[in-house]
Amino acid sequence: MARLDGRKKDEIRKTKITRDYLLYPDGSVLVEVGDTKVICTAMIENKVPPFLRGSETGWVTAEYSMLPGSTVTRKMRDSSKGKVDGRSQEIQRLIGRSMRSVVDLNLLGERTLWLDCDVIQADGGTRTASISGAFVAMADAFYKLMKEGALEKMPVKSFVSAVSVGIVNDEDVLDLCYLEDSNAKVDMNIVMTDKEEFIEVQGTGEEAPFTMDELTSLLEIGKKGCCDIFEIQKNVLGKEIYELIGE
Amino acid sequence: MARLDGRKKDEIRKTKITRDYLLYPDGSVLVEVGDTKVICTAMIENKVPPFLRGSETGWVTAEYSMLPGSTVTRKMRDSSKGKVDGRSQEIQRLIGRSMRSVVDLNLLGERTLWLDCDVIQADGGTRTASISGAFVAMADAFYKLMKEGALEKMPVKSFVSAVSVGIVNDEDVLDLCYLEDSNAKVDMNIVMTDKEEFIEVQGTGEEAPFTMDELTSLLEIGKKGCCDIFEIQKNVLGKEIYELIGE
Amino acid sequence: MARLDGRKKDEIRKTKITRDYLLYPDGSVLVEVGDTKVICTAMIENKVPPFLRGSETGWVTAEYSMLPGSTVTRKMRDSSKGKVDGRSQEIQRLIGRSMRSVVDLNLLGERTLWLDCDVIQADGGTRTASISGAFVAMADAFYKLMKEGALEKMPVKSFVSAVSVGIVNDEDVLDLCYLEDSNAKVDMNIVMTDKEEFIEVQGTGEEAPFTMDELTSLLEIGKKGCCDIFEIQKNVLGKEIYELIGE
Amino acid sequence: MARLDGRKKDEIRKTKITRDYLLYPDGSVLVEVGDTKVICTAMIENKVPPFLRGSETGWVTAEYSMLPGSTVTRKMRDSSKGKVDGRSQEIQRLIGRSMRSVVDLNLLGERTLWLDCDVIQADGGTRTASISGAFVAMADAFYKLMKEGALEKMPVKSFVSAVSVGIVNDEDVLDLCYLEDSNAKVDMNIVMTDKEEFIEVQGTGEEAPFTMDELTSLLEIGKKGCCDIFEIQKNVLGKEIYELIGE
Amino acid sequence: MARLDGRKKDEIRKTKITRDYLLYPDGSVLVEVGDTKVICTAMIENKVPPFLRGSETGWVTAEYSMLPGSTVTRKMRDSSKGKVDGRSQEIQRLIGRSMRSVVDLNLLGERTLWLDCDVIQADGGTRTASISGAFVAMADAFYKLMKEGALEKMPVKSFVSAVSVGIVNDEDVLDLCYLEDSNAKVDMNIVMTDKEEFIEVQGTGEEAPFTMDELTSLLEIGKKGCCDIFEIQKNVLGKEIYELIGE
Amino acid sequence: MARLDGRKKDEIRKTKITRDYLLYPDGSVLVEVGDTKVICTAMIENKVPPFLRGSETGWVTAEYSMLPGSTVTRKMRDSSKGKVDGRSQEIQRLIGRSMRSVVDLNLLGERTLWLDCDVIQADGGTRTASISGAFVAMADAFYKLMKEGALEKMPVKSFVSAVSVGIVNDEDVLDLCYLEDSNAKVDMNIVMTDKEEFIEVQGTGEEAPFTMDELTSLLEIGKKGCCDIFEIQKNVLGKEIYELIGE
Repeated sequence: MARLDGRKKDEIRKTKITRDYLLYPDGSVLVEVGDTKVICTAMIENKVPPFLRGSETGWVTAEYSMLPGSTVTRKMRDSSKGKVDGRSQEIQRLIGRSMRSVVDLNLLGERTLWLDCDVIQADGGTRTASISGAFVAMADAFYKLMKEGALEKMPVKSFVSAVSVGIVNDEDVLDLCYLEDSNAKVDMNIVMTDKEEFIEVQGTGEEAPFTMDELTSLLEIGKKGCCDIFEIQKNVLGKEIYELIGE
Repeated sequence: MARLDGRKKDEIRKTKITRDYLLYPDGSVLVEVGDTKVICTAMIENKVPPFLRGSETGWVTAEYSMLPGSTVTRKMRDSSKGKVDGRSQEIQRLIGRSMRSVVDLNLLGERTLWLDCDVIQADGGTRTASISGAFVAMADAFYKLMKEGALEKMPVKSFVSAVSVGIVNDEDVLDLCYLEDSNAKVDMNIVMTDKEEFIEVQGTGEEAPFTMDELTSLLEIGKKGCCDIFEIQKNVLGKEIYELIGE
Repeated sequence: MARLDGRKKDEIRKTKITRDYLLYPDGSVLVEVGDTKVICTAMIENKVPPFLRGSETGWVTAEYSMLPGSTVTRKMRDSSKGKVDGRSQEIQRLIGRSMRSVVDLNLLGERTLWLDCDVIQADGGTRTASISGAFVAMADAFYKLMKEGALEKMPVKSFVSAVSVGIVNDEDVLDLCYLEDSNAKVDMNIVMTDKEEFIEVQGTGEEAPFTMDELTSLLEIGKKGCCDIFEIQKNVLGKEIYELIGE
Repeated sequence: MARLDGRKKDEIRKTKITRDYLLYPDGSVLVEVGDTKVICTAMIENKVPPFLRGSETGWVTAEYSMLPGSTVTRKMRDSSKGKVDGRSQEIQRLIGRSMRSVVDLNLLGERTLWLDCDVIQADGGTRTASISGAFVAMADAFYKLMKEGALEKMPVKSFVSAVSVGIVNDEDVLDLCYLEDSNAKVDMNIVMTDKEEFIEVQGTGEEAPFTMDELTSLLEIGKKGCCDIFEIQKNVLGKEIYELIGE
Repeated sequence: MARLDGRKKDEIRKTKITRDYLLYPDGSVLVEVGDTKVICTAMIENKVPPFLRGSETGWVTAEYSMLPGSTVTRKMRDSSKGKVDGRSQEIQRLIGRSMRSVVDLNLLGERTLWLDCDVIQADGGTRTASISGAFVAMADAFYKLMKEGALEKMPVKSFVSAVSVGIVNDEDVLDLCYLEDSNAKVDMNIVMTDKEEFIEVQGTGEEAPFTMDELTSLLEIGKKGCCDIFEIQKNVLGKEIYELIGE
Repeated sequence: MARLDGRKKDEIRKTKITRDYLLYPDGSVLVEVGDTKVICTAMIENKVPPFLRGSETGWVTAEYSMLPGSTVTRKMRDSSKGKVDGRSQEIQRLIGRSMRSVVDLNLLGERTLWLDCDVIQADGGTRTASISGAFVAMADAFYKLMKEGALEKMPVKSFVSAVSVGIVNDEDVLDLCYLEDSNAKVDMNIVMTDKEEFIEVQGTGEEAPFTMDELTSLLEIGKKGCCDIFEIQKNVLGKEIYELIGE
């Protein structure tokens, strides 16, 4: 059975990462995955949260939000609701954790890297697009610190990308758009390194539970998707930067 | 004395309004005024706030926010601060008031138009850019309602644009960028209709008060700036739509 | 056409400023403008906000609120609503800005002056009455610091007063009461120094836009109103204090 | 040992209740107890909270707040702190409970009486002054409803007044000012009806616990204080109104 | 007339205090008073609130909350309501005040004792059970500090217990369960020391005011109830600890 | 290498579920997993959230919180912080999703089941213990509805249990206590049905990423752990109830 947009089951959507999208952040990209568009910025602050003061260790943290006009029905702002959105918190915790897993925080010194992922258009997969984009913004910010002489070595150990997989109409599919996601009986987000290791695997069968075989099969196509994104990340960063990663 | 970017005193920055910037809102633009960039979306909701229920009258309201990466130093989110930013509230009240002043709310029927202005890059004049852009998004949203047969007549009576003026190094200048704004002894925001009438005049001499003559002179170049923007708005909306306005 | 209370078009309401209204603040007044009544207090704190620490510069800030019983329909408290009132924030920013424009913050040293304007009865013009009253409370607080030897010189460069003007029934009128304000097609607040310079000009034509001629004419009667209030401020402060201002 | 202001141990401070203090509320007083000054307003709303809808029963509720300038050190506003003040909540619950204890809520019908007590100057005893003053504002508001024909009968069964008592320098004293209160080893608030019955007795020996004899002795002088206040309330309300109470 | 559960008028409910209920706090008890069950924990923090820094004085503070499942109708969480519950604040202030009244804060040094009272089942008297239980948890926490050599002397001067009394069906009764409490015309909470002195007396006659005789009679049976609880506290703490109290 | 408490690698901690732990909820358990203790309550409300009104469909939702004394260092309350804890939100979303995956919401009718999981002692695995316990409380609440005749059929399709697995000292271990969890390089939570299907798989390698083989091996021992818990759940529910599940 064909997918809505004619893609193959294990094919990611057209994915584009535009570097230097904004003027002021230390790193900034617009990541487009099909119709999903996210602005990811990376900004260095020369201090760390209280629990790390004096530790000579850095920190990486993320915030995630959706613009009111990013969805079909207007999304009310958190600041208007006066209460934080649980889903947003869950996503920003995931982004932060994923990035920290490949950063050597000791090399970073007592600095905080703020990653902000603001969704301007949401057609499914906003959290995975945020991770794939935030990685590039982060690499740019650290590279800037290196060029300024503030860091001797790139503190990033591996590439990180993320993609969703799911079971839709009894078929495993890669990189679900919103409509596919709404009809998926199983939905899984995968975050990987370019060493083919998993950083996060989050699968949920709210609609219907899934077997070990289904899980294994989904992980396989997820791995393929992440690898396709590593290619895009490497191309956009260029050899000069990507060869510093994981040195 | 020359301006930072070589502009003439009464010259606006390079201004570009991109329509249909996003897929889901009823109207959406990216407005660029020099390095200032704002996404303005317009979304129709088929109900009104409690104070208007049963009145057969519509409402137009606006929200304004800056992305964390829009400024040189990261701007903390309102939702993280847990407290609403006074400046943002002031600006969104101004945007809402400006739009309502040219909309016939009776023609709109019991609908709310939500305008969202999200600044993705801030180099001065974000509130005036928001107004100039939100006007186009609003016109698009109403035009869509007309095409759907939900409105018989465009409920917009005039064009609205806005621009800042100020006194910098003892000279009157039009459309200040951030650096000029920081050095202005007087700073004024002007919102006008294309009938050369003022909707809002907000001048502040926090650094130094100003005389009636200075005020008059500033209003003159402000008027010129607003007219330049009307041209841009008309060009981007196209004859089919702009001839419906103020009919 | 006569005004509701028989006043002339360019006549302010009966205005009275009572000094030393409360026991504990460094300066405190009750300002009465017709039926509008506001308690303005000025209190010195021997520290400054974080962004000024170590700068040897002072700060002046204001807060504004309305008592629940100040209006015809009970006004819900901000603390009960759990969300800050945008209009109040806008007004307190205006009051703070107006006062800072005439204070030499370097002379003040690392001190904060807190101005609190609490409306106990609201019949229009509460923000302008707050400014006119807060100025007197501020002068008193600084004078107290001088008498204590903490300041060598009065850090106030000019008098400040404020008044509203508007177009009601096609006539320019000065100092609108609530009923006039509700029927005004244009509404403007003017803050001036006693050197006949403007600190703030905020005009809005939400009901109907206004022309340059209308604006000029409104500013003229506004100027007259501010001058009338300077007389009242000078009388109530007395020669000993007012001669120190702008020395 | 003499009291600070020369009062006798069982003498209340100079107490004055000014009726019709504000224009808009249904009842409003300024109550002055020595240097303590509180504005009490009573406003009728023609609906009840959700838990009483359809019950044909009314409700009486109170809010209490202190102006920033009411105390020697500026009191931060609840709305600025972004968190409600526990002491204020405790006091407003006490005021509401005290008034409801003498109101026949069935007679009131489905209406809410809002009592607002705003302290403009605090020299001890603000909660008891609020109760004594709110009672008069409440009586005025209900009397207004009677005159309008909305109520057939005054829904108030007894007068209510309140006073503080305490042990200072080993002596029982009545109606403590702030300085006495700070030095009291026992502090008690008493709310009574004019039938010499207690509505509330709240005694705390945070500094030192107290015996049954001490308690009995304090209640005696408290009773005297409340009776003195009933005289003042009756005088200010006038015979026409006070004879309706408890009919 | 017999009580619901056959108790005598001056008989407390079956009361049990289980020490060392949890592993991590410095002191922790489960207190059961009839069907009312409260977990009370005491935790030492080696710093004090800002107003005490440098004073060489300690602090004791309390927080109180009810689990959602503790009541017949699910109790919404404060954190979900986004607004603090006035009743909870009032109770936690009472608990803190009661404990501080018997603690020598100077002996404690610059430490804060946090008392947390979490009601897991509520059948009336949760605030008094919290006080009786928190006292034991507090004694345990201080005893632990003594054993560690951090304190030389037990900083507790007396035992503290609390109980409710009320008038139900025209009879004075001790330790009301929820159903009795709902039908009480007078309701009073009493906090005492084992020297038969009162720390707090809080009586309210919201339903009907009460006379001096009624008050005296209620205090008598309250005193008996507190004494019964002192026995239970002493038994559970054991001689080694209780002989240190009030030494 | 031996585990801290001598357990085998694939052995769960001593797990005990006590039914009918509280009087008022429709279902309530105390679940103890080693030193981790959680009170889980289930309460039925006869209405649904707005998005389901009129749908004849029910809802299951969960809230999760930790008592201040449940951890070694006192955990500040959400209501005191004035801001919701992201981790708690993430966990309560997981609990709700897990339960909904096995409930036939159509059979439930327009009712909401509130599940509250309050951790009274936390030694790792609080989210998985909450799920295993909440399932039993939920079954009890639905069974009560059946006995009352409100439901014809048990709306639960399968049993649900949850357990954590991780890699500690290079070995796969089941059901990590806090100390093991702190030293785990990979940490995974598994939620399963008794049909050996996964509802949720959440693995994170914040410390170090993990391979497909490691993942497969962890899922195997996780499956064993969940099966051990199903036995405990079935024993405690008894045949009469458990045979209704998945009928």
